[in-house]
Amino acid sequence: MKMTKVPYKINLSEEEIPKYYYNLRADMIEKPEPLLNPATREEMTKSELEKVFCSELVDQELDNSNKFIPIPEEIRELYKIYRPSPMIRAYNLEKKLETPAKIYYKFEGNNTSGSHKLNSAIAQIYYAKKQGLKKVTTETGAGQWGTALAIACSLFDMELEVFMVKSSYEQKPFRKNIMKVFGGNVTPSPSDTTKVGREILKINPNTSGSLGCAISEAVEVASMDPNSRYVLGSVLNQVVLHQSIIGLESKIALEKYGEYPDIVIGCAGGGSNLGGLMAPFVGENIKGGRSSRIIAVEPSSCPSLTRGKYIYDYCDTGKITPLAKMYTLGSGFIPAANHSGGLRYHGMSPIISKLYHDGYMEAKSYTQSSVFEAAILFAKSETILPAPESAHAIKAAIDEALKCKESKEEKTILFGLTGTGYFDMLAYESYLEGTMIDHVPTDEELNLANLSEI
Amino acid sequence: MKMTKVPYKINLSEEEIPKYYYNLRADMIEKPEPLLNPATREEMTKSELEKVFCSELVDQELDNSNKFIPIPEEIRELYKIYRPSPMIRAYNLEKKLETPAKIYYKFEGNNTSGSHKLNSAIAQIYYAKKQGLKKVTTETGAGQWGTALAIACSLFDMELEVFMVKSSYEQKPFRKNIMKVFGGNVTPSPSDTTKVGREILKINPNTSGSLGCAISEAVEVASMDPNSRYVLGSVLNQVVLHQSIIGLESKIALEKYGEYPDIVIGCAGGGSNLGGLMAPFVGENIKGGRSSRIIAVEPSSCPSLTRGKYIYDYCDTGKITPLAKMYTLGSGFIPAANHSGGLRYHGMSPIISKLYHDGYMEAKSYTQSSVFEAAILFAKSETILPAPESAHAIKAAIDEALKCKESKEEKTILFGLTGTGYFDMLAYESYLEGTMIDHVPTDEELNLANLSEI
Repeated sequence: MKMTKVPYKINLSEEEIPKYYYNLRADMIEKPEPLLNPATREEMTKSELEKVFCSELVDQELDNSNKFIPIPEEIRELYKIYRPSPMIRAYNLEKKLETPAKIYYKFEGNNTSGSHKLNSAIAQIYYAKKQGLKKVTTETGAGQWGTALAIACSLFDMELEVFMVKSSYEQKPFRKNIMKVFGGNVTPSPSDTTKVGREILKINPNTSGSLGCAISEAVEVASMDPNSRYVLGSVLNQVVLHQSIIGLESKIALEKYGEYPDIVIGCAGGGSNLGGLMAPFVGENIKGGRSSRIIAVEPSSCPSLTRGKYIYDYCDTGKITPLAKMYTLGSGFIPAANHSGGLRYHGMSPIISKLYHDGYMEAKSYTQSSVFEAAILFAKSETILPAPESAHAIKAAIDEALKCKESKEEKTILFGLTGTGYFDMLAYESYLEGTMIDHVPTDEELNLANLSEI
Repeated sequence: MKMTKVPYKINLSEEEIPKYYYNLRADMIEKPEPLLNPATREEMTKSELEKVFCSELVDQELDNSNKFIPIPEEIRELYKIYRPSPMIRAYNLEKKLETPAKIYYKFEGNNTSGSHKLNSAIAQIYYAKKQGLKKVTTETGAGQWGTALAIACSLFDMELEVFMVKSSYEQKPFRKNIMKVFGGNVTPSPSDTTKVGREILKINPNTSGSLGCAISEAVEVASMDPNSRYVLGSVLNQVVLHQSIIGLESKIALEKYGEYPDIVIGCAGGGSNLGGLMAPFVGENIKGGRSSRIIAVEPSSCPSLTRGKYIYDYCDTGKITPLAKMYTLGSGFIPAANHSGGLRYHGMSPIISKLYHDGYMEAKSYTQSSVFEAAILFAKSETILPAPESAHAIKAAIDEALKCKESKEEKTILFGLTGTGYFDMLAYESYLEGTMIDHVPTDEELNLANLSEI
């Protein structure tokens, strides 16, 4: 007999913030494939990577064997400002769905970056500061990563240069302003402040920019200054490592009430949120302990896992990065306009790609209209306005809960609510007014038959 | 010797959510003056008020004697979705200020309404539903109250009609959309859907509207339908009563760590946040228990407490409401444009007005530039982007902390961080670009010499 009703929110104490990041790679039987130098096709070495990333992050990037990486006390102190994040039982949503399933969500949106991105931003800037660096550069599309980084840089008094895709810079002035509040310099990309930017502008003066171009500009600026490094908010092993804090806290919170997820669901763009949320649960699966189904959810318009190829490819459109073995639609793939900017990425974290390839995970995709329908049902039940990215996980969780209703199974479903949708109101408006367009690329459009390993 | 360091966030459990609202009026030695019928100058009766407000809320409005009003279990269940709200120790801000003062803030912004307004919205809609009503109407300016009400109505499946000041409707499309996501109907005011709206449009077809006009339209629509009532998000006794949950939780949280505030600070527009935050602390002051200084903070451009008169006046610009005895700048006073929309009110809650008049409180005012400077210092230290309204309290808290630095006193300062500034980025931009205008009305502009009791 259960003595205690599970509360709506399971809040851990600050002392329960994990003291170690969990490095899932150490437990993986087959490791994710290494990054390659595109010129030589040799494994990227520590010294090559240190030209772009700070040293301790390179160690983390390459570390496939140490299971627990200590979280420095300074990082834990800053996490305490907004963590542990709440684990919430969606009682109202369950009631509305009339499902016997128990639905939990780990809510990462209660900080000013509006998403889980702050977890890795704080870690990356801590290590950069420790190394004596003065400045970091990055690119941002939708703006969550840039905002998280601006907050982290303001905490460590680190200079920040953000190259923001010009179309986003113009369409999302609020995002730009919020980064400026925290002291970040924001430059619309392409710009005339870099060599690569000037070249692009010469060829196409009216371009609205792309993430690939913004990456190229950010890397160029970082590489010109020995006190600068480039930082990235997803895809990389180090980012998935930092985000493991989401999964670790989730596991502790659920265990407190004797719960364990039968299903773990996360939206997947570059993979940072899902990689972090699922890490300890996948670890259990691998070790043959308790077992969970793991589901990655992506937009139908950018179906890297569900329809892409598992090959070596560039991480960026500009082809200046190392090669990663991952599920990809090709580095030249430009997804149709979609309001989930955070999920418009041609590839996928090598860790998630490897696990998916080896059968440890499932993946599914949804059109954006179906995702927004789920988002609104969720908002009206749970009072939180979700980010469109996060709503992909909501949609999958609702579908699984409805299956439980049919099969009369009391499964425990955990999904990651990565962020809030306050800066996505135009997207909601488009859905409410019935003008939202769902694009599912045809096989001809994807043209994967011609996509071969780089 | 202190054994336990006070954590960054003091999270209460859901079981610690208060079971009673605290009715400060019961402990006040002299009670706030009653609402008067402007035609007769008689006290508004229960039956008169029930034409506009639902019955149980009228009881609460008129109740000067019952100290504890039970919070119905259904309301407490809904509070559990987002409450208790965190009490946060501003360690980083203290460090930046190099102050010996201990600064705490009660953060009410972690819900989709972005402010404390949801506390009263849920209560008001619960009582409306219980009475069998089908619909409520209200007005909104900046939009927090309308959003909170839309969320509450979606939880109770109650129809909602919001009259939104036309200038806000056009300038803040995101706010309008968020209300629509939760199912609220939003009409720009003045509109041709009401008699009063049509009359105003006939005289001035190009008017951008006013809060006074929006109130008139909302009241008209409510009064046309026996299943409708009008609801209001501030000023009224009932609203201050519901918001007492802020102060009650604050007191419990601080007591857990042996803390008691020497100073309690809140921004004050209509008074709902400050009235709720300070209630139990003022109660102690009155009873001669522990003692706190209470400080109300308002914009220099709308200085109702610091420069207004304590007289009977209309609560609205349209002069259709009962008269309230309060500090007022006159119901015809139109404050200069200011980015703190929630503080642009000519009057003040009768409870706060009475306490201020009787010397239980202090009040101060700040220009908006000085408030935004404080907001940015706070954001960079504490990672939270505050609403401009809330930043008034931040500014006063910083000033008090700096006084402590000078006097080397380790005072405990508590302020209310009522909400977040995600929808106020244009205001931040204006500050950062140096185009913000500070307006402090001259005595001639206020023209209080000619303001006499209605």
